[in-house]
Amino acid sequence: MTHELHASAAPELDRTAHPAFEAAYQAARKSLAEGGIPIGAALARDGVVIASGHNERVQNADPIAHGEMSALRAAGRQNSYRDTTLYTTLAPCAMCAGTIVQFKIPRVVVGEARTFDGELELLRTRGVEVVVLDDQRSVDMMRTFQSDNPELWAEDIAEEIVE
Amino acid sequence: MTHELHASAAPELDRTAHPAFEAAYQAARKSLAEGGIPIGAALARDGVVIASGHNERVQNADPIAHGEMSALRAAGRQNSYRDTTLYTTLAPCAMCAGTIVQFKIPRVVVGEARTFDGELELLRTRGVEVVVLDDQRSVDMMRTFQSDNPELWAEDIAEEIVE
Repeated sequence: MTHELHASAAPELDRTAHPAFEAAYQAARKSLAEGGIPIGAALARDGVVIASGHNERVQNADPIAHGEMSALRAAGRQNSYRDTTLYTTLAPCAMCAGTIVQFKIPRVVVGEARTFDGELELLRTRGVEVVVLDDQRSVDMMRTFQSDNPELWAEDIAEEIVE
Repeated sequence: MTHELHASAAPELDRTAHPAFEAAYQAARKSLAEGGIPIGAALARDGVVIASGHNERVQNADPIAHGEMSALRAAGRQNSYRDTTLYTTLAPCAMCAGTIVQFKIPRVVVGEARTFDGELELLRTRGVEVVVLDDQRSVDMMRTFQSDNPELWAEDIAEEIVE
């Protein structure tokens, strides 16, 4: 693989630096393949993925199962999250941001905040370190999904579509 | 039932005025009977309970299943929450408060905020109406539980016990 071949590709270095982000992205792809909302997340401790999950609104009719919430549910009971990092393909909403604050997760790595700006300021105000990768694959995946499924996307973020 | 018999009881009028709160309280009692954390919630629309739920950390090893979250999960997918009220026995934590904000639930009725002060200011700052009943039964239930199960309570609110 030469540099030339990847000159216009998504930032390979960022993904290499955040291998757990790949687990989040693959969870999002899995959800998309199932007909669900393509947002995924992974919880990691010391660089090792503890659990991953994806949005389950469509699959399980579960409105609280955003990607971040599903990953935290899959991780089960933890004595502490102070040594963990949460990876997610999309900027966390108020539910997921509140959960990160409540669980005292110190660091969140976000795939992108272009298709949904989320609550990054709430996180930062509460002392959470936020890293935004601006991953082009994640942007493209959400843009296509939002364009193809405007009502489902609106439902997931509790917005009402104005005709 | 005479007034005299209830002179020192919990405020009967408040509970009569909020019948859906009783569903939240009974969900908390059910959790306690199962060996779980006694916090319950109910979602109501036009005074009718849509769903109720309780904390499921112990029962299902589910750290995101606070009472409010369980009730919202049980309610399933909703087009809108703008005409709903969420009832809960205990002041919502940051996770549950963030969820209320995200779902645009306009009103929350809280059993008590004495044993855990929660994030009532976050709710109010984001435009959510908060009513605190100061229900003595809820206070007594939580005080007993916190006293008997300090480690489990600390885990549920992601606090660390300092010996």
